[in-house]
Amino acid sequence: MFKVKTKDGKIFETKEESILQVLQRQGVYLHASCGGKGSCGRCKIKVLEGNIKTESFFGISEKEKAEGFVLACQSFPGGDILIEIPDKLITVSERISTVKTEIIEKILKEEILRAKALRMTSSLSFRGGQYPEESLFAPVVKKLSLKIDPPSFDSHGDFERLKRSIQKELFISRKLAEKLSYFLRENNWSINLAITEEEILDFLSKKIYGIAVDIGTTTVVLALVDLEEGKIVDVASCYNSQINYGDDVITRIIFAEENPEGLNILRKSIVDDINALINTVSLRNKEGKIYCAFVAGNTTMCHIFWGINPKYIRQEPYTPTLNRYPIWKASDCMLLLEPQIPIYTLPSVAGYVGGDIVSGLLTTGLYKDEETSLFIDIGTNGEIVIGNKDFLITASTSAGPCFEGSGISCGMRATEGAVESFSYNQKTDEFDIKVIGNEAPRGICGSGMIDILSELFSKKVIDQKGKFVTDNSKHIKIFDNEARFVISSDCYITQSDIDNIIRAKAAIYAGISTLLEEVGLSERELKKVYIAGGFGEFLNIKKAIKIGMLPNLSEERFIFLGNTSLTGAVLCLLSKNFWELANELAQKMTYIDLSRSKKFMDEYVSALFLPHTDWERFRELG
Amino acid sequence: MFKVKTKDGKIFETKEESILQVLQRQGVYLHASCGGKGSCGRCKIKVLEGNIKTESFFGISEKEKAEGFVLACQSFPGGDILIEIPDKLITVSERISTVKTEIIEKILKEEILRAKALRMTSSLSFRGGQYPEESLFAPVVKKLSLKIDPPSFDSHGDFERLKRSIQKELFISRKLAEKLSYFLRENNWSINLAITEEEILDFLSKKIYGIAVDIGTTTVVLALVDLEEGKIVDVASCYNSQINYGDDVITRIIFAEENPEGLNILRKSIVDDINALINTVSLRNKEGKIYCAFVAGNTTMCHIFWGINPKYIRQEPYTPTLNRYPIWKASDCMLLLEPQIPIYTLPSVAGYVGGDIVSGLLTTGLYKDEETSLFIDIGTNGEIVIGNKDFLITASTSAGPCFEGSGISCGMRATEGAVESFSYNQKTDEFDIKVIGNEAPRGICGSGMIDILSELFSKKVIDQKGKFVTDNSKHIKIFDNEARFVISSDCYITQSDIDNIIRAKAAIYAGISTLLEEVGLSERELKKVYIAGGFGEFLNIKKAIKIGMLPNLSEERFIFLGNTSLTGAVLCLLSKNFWELANELAQKMTYIDLSRSKKFMDEYVSALFLPHTDWERFRELG
Repeated sequence: MFKVKTKDGKIFETKEESILQVLQRQGVYLHASCGGKGSCGRCKIKVLEGNIKTESFFGISEKEKAEGFVLACQSFPGGDILIEIPDKLITVSERISTVKTEIIEKILKEEILRAKALRMTSSLSFRGGQYPEESLFAPVVKKLSLKIDPPSFDSHGDFERLKRSIQKELFISRKLAEKLSYFLRENNWSINLAITEEEILDFLSKKIYGIAVDIGTTTVVLALVDLEEGKIVDVASCYNSQINYGDDVITRIIFAEENPEGLNILRKSIVDDINALINTVSLRNKEGKIYCAFVAGNTTMCHIFWGINPKYIRQEPYTPTLNRYPIWKASDCMLLLEPQIPIYTLPSVAGYVGGDIVSGLLTTGLYKDEETSLFIDIGTNGEIVIGNKDFLITASTSAGPCFEGSGISCGMRATEGAVESFSYNQKTDEFDIKVIGNEAPRGICGSGMIDILSELFSKKVIDQKGKFVTDNSKHIKIFDNEARFVISSDCYITQSDIDNIIRAKAAIYAGISTLLEEVGLSERELKKVYIAGGFGEFLNIKKAIKIGMLPNLSEERFIFLGNTSLTGAVLCLLSKNFWELANELAQKMTYIDLSRSKKFMDEYVSALFLPHTDWERFRELG
Repeated sequence: MFKVKTKDGKIFETKEESILQVLQRQGVYLHASCGGKGSCGRCKIKVLEGNIKTESFFGISEKEKAEGFVLACQSFPGGDILIEIPDKLITVSERISTVKTEIIEKILKEEILRAKALRMTSSLSFRGGQYPEESLFAPVVKKLSLKIDPPSFDSHGDFERLKRSIQKELFISRKLAEKLSYFLRENNWSINLAITEEEILDFLSKKIYGIAVDIGTTTVVLALVDLEEGKIVDVASCYNSQINYGDDVITRIIFAEENPEGLNILRKSIVDDINALINTVSLRNKEGKIYCAFVAGNTTMCHIFWGINPKYIRQEPYTPTLNRYPIWKASDCMLLLEPQIPIYTLPSVAGYVGGDIVSGLLTTGLYKDEETSLFIDIGTNGEIVIGNKDFLITASTSAGPCFEGSGISCGMRATEGAVESFSYNQKTDEFDIKVIGNEAPRGICGSGMIDILSELFSKKVIDQKGKFVTDNSKHIKIFDNEARFVISSDCYITQSDIDNIIRAKAAIYAGISTLLEEVGLSERELKKVYIAGGFGEFLNIKKAIKIGMLPNLSEERFIFLGNTSLTGAVLCLLSKNFWELANELAQKMTYIDLSRSKKFMDEYVSALFLPHTDWERFRELG
């Protein structure tokens, strides 16, 4: 028996297991998209002390080797060892990734009531089917238990008798048909099927699971859903590895254009990421098997995921190859699922308003209201929808990924070590911070940035243009010819960080104003403002209004929805009615191209001040 | 410049070409399912004289090497050479394979008139489509020339605008979608599509071809059809290489059962055969590309082609895995076509009445007549259909492959060197033979066998039981303790050959009688007798009646249809109405299992005589 210690103090006992297996057994899941076969070269850990036996150094450079890096899946302790696991390797369910199950339950209940009212009962009703008509959910993949007539001299084939039991014409793949006769005889003509409305996907013994995947430009989040119980059973997330090739969609499109293998590299990155997440949740939930996937992402992310070159999205008039994706198969996208598993892609509206927004809209319910509301998703781009049951108008602002921690000197996601709130005492020139996990501050997350900007502005440490008033605080230091406000040695905010954040907030606010003008409404007429994105409920609304990012409305009108892209995809998993609704909404949405709007440019320039050149709009806040 | 001479006297000139290429250029097509890449090991030729440079001996045994065998595709003349090409290697359009185009044209015209009468015009009507409504044909794959709106700032994707032009929702594969945007821009928004009713198969510059394939137990025949002109442009055929693993379906099913890789071996055999034929016709017809395939074969052949184990077809109650095959893709069956090409499999009726019979039925038209007719396909099995517009009854007799040349000492197909007719002068004890190609006799084909049996019987060289009356002819010799009638040193018929042929003819006649009894009709009530199979029109009806193989009807009631399995598949290629009709007919046909019929056993035993124990039935022929 050997001990494996990690640098952060955990101790595991093991014998004859790879380090990856030890960690997995103890609930520490590393990225390993190959499933521990030594072929992806991702699970690199550093051995600090002790001997290990390593079978392969696939993907490890000479330099890394010299530093002690090995592949966790190919390495076995030769005695007690001490290892260090790079942060980015650990897949964790962070706050940022949380789907709000209470939102999903609320929406499902509302929709079921509405459906009952409209007598919209499911059109699927199988003999021997397992769900009552008024079921709480109607996933695209269902389990069906059948007893099939044994063969007689009537000449009917096994597949024909199976279809007779279902009373429905269904497709079966060649590969599955190959196993049918044997399987039926082995199981004495009783069979459990995983079926869609068109196809028999499998004969099964495990539970039916589905996955919802939010492919963000910065982060990827996957929810595993039990489609028999209608419950989310697990969530996992990681950074989108495409970050290595550019922070935002534009730089990635350029990367795909300029490198001969660029598109494939980006595609492989995201597919590997998702496969690693699938692997993680599959290891943690062995009683089920995944039979369908709903994928939501912006138009560029979805193009890359499917291996379709997004180059024309960057060129005027910003045309995608397609907005509505056919229901392709797992074999088409190289996900490590059975090849015949259907992959549903949430439809896009335009090159810069993607399936993530359509998915998100499902969670707001604004599309069925009399009154008009605003939906805004602050991710790497800031997408905006304004509408009600009669119209939907949408636009995208290039806010950039700063609120997700990218492009800011000490930016980070809302995870352990991130400054999430900040207050400043002008008299003492001292500040208070709140750090996630109560640790030493390692960086600043989106809500922290807004807090800092708002406090420094209201206490006049920065001026209306966002420039440091250098005399006003001892915390302002000059470093490399640039002023920065220093929170700790590891954590500070620079002048260009502030300029960045101001551009982002200006783009968001200008987008909202432009769309409102477009439909002839004022801010006050918005019933609700639904906010999605990394912030979640950790955003301080008052402070966001103070810096002029959000419209000046009373706080109760704001509703935080978390990761709506993922939540919408989960809704589609749970009920095909939402999938159909998503397609209707995407068709109904009118896209406004802000890059060609003079109104937007004017609004943007006006919003580059704190809070705005038009003080009147933010007057009540004084 | 070198000379390549073949043993049979052809001379070709060449320089820097492989032997395969030289031969192909001169119209001699060898089996080479890999297309000449050296990876199938099929194009083995023997070098008799001269030097050659050979790059690979893939698939050639040490013994073969010593004998001078090389791969034609991997070998280059190093000077003048003399080669020998094994007969079985050459793919030729033999008589056996001929599809009767006049039958196809007649049927198409009749159907069109019927459709017009019923106002059954095609439901497909595309804006910009190329076919007039009352087109002579309606293939499942069509060409569509489109002009697509260039993109504007309206946010629509390229695929959405393409579908808008067609005014139809169509599926597109991921692989094709990948190329769409580039292709549209390169071609200035003009595009030719190959489409089915559901899917865009390709963007094309070549003509649209389709293939019809008859997978016989003994022979495989492929017709290449121009789907724009509605014409058969080429036909190629070969033996079914599965012959190496058994002569009939039963021995092949056993082979698949008893050998761990048996099914795969059989599958690969037939797929390689078809690929070789595809390669042959593709080389001869380069102006088009194949976009769909219709495959007709008996139930076992189709199961094996799709890699589905036929084992349960052999076990009571003889149940196939499926009778109606989904429309699977070329990628599912390993045919060397684009992976997304749809492969239509003609539906079976039962384990022993397959898609070849359903396909054949299409060519008879008996399914729409008031009066009752008989359809009989004499291939490796003898399948029988009796019916009219109100009913269809079908059965299969295990006649065996003797009329196709298999299981008979000097049996061969109706190709050069085959004795196809035979007459005998009792007085002189001399005979006259007609040999296909006016060559020296190398063997006996089906029609020759019937001629021989009939002549020897009527001239009393064999008795009513088919036994040689040894004193009656000097041509009867004893060899290995068995009597044989000697035609030439290479060509003779033995006592067991005759017994074999009698069993075959008895099975066919007993099958017909049993079905007639089943529906309460007499032979005389049959309006027509449609005959399909290798015989074609080379069968002497009178002599076939004389030996008691066919019902005793006047000659004008018999109609020869040739290879109806192939002809029916061509009809389906030319018009999807026939494909739908085939599916209807298959459902409508009532299958009678002769193996469980006492009636059949009685009839069979009675028919084991020449012509029959019941002389009355054949009285008029005296």
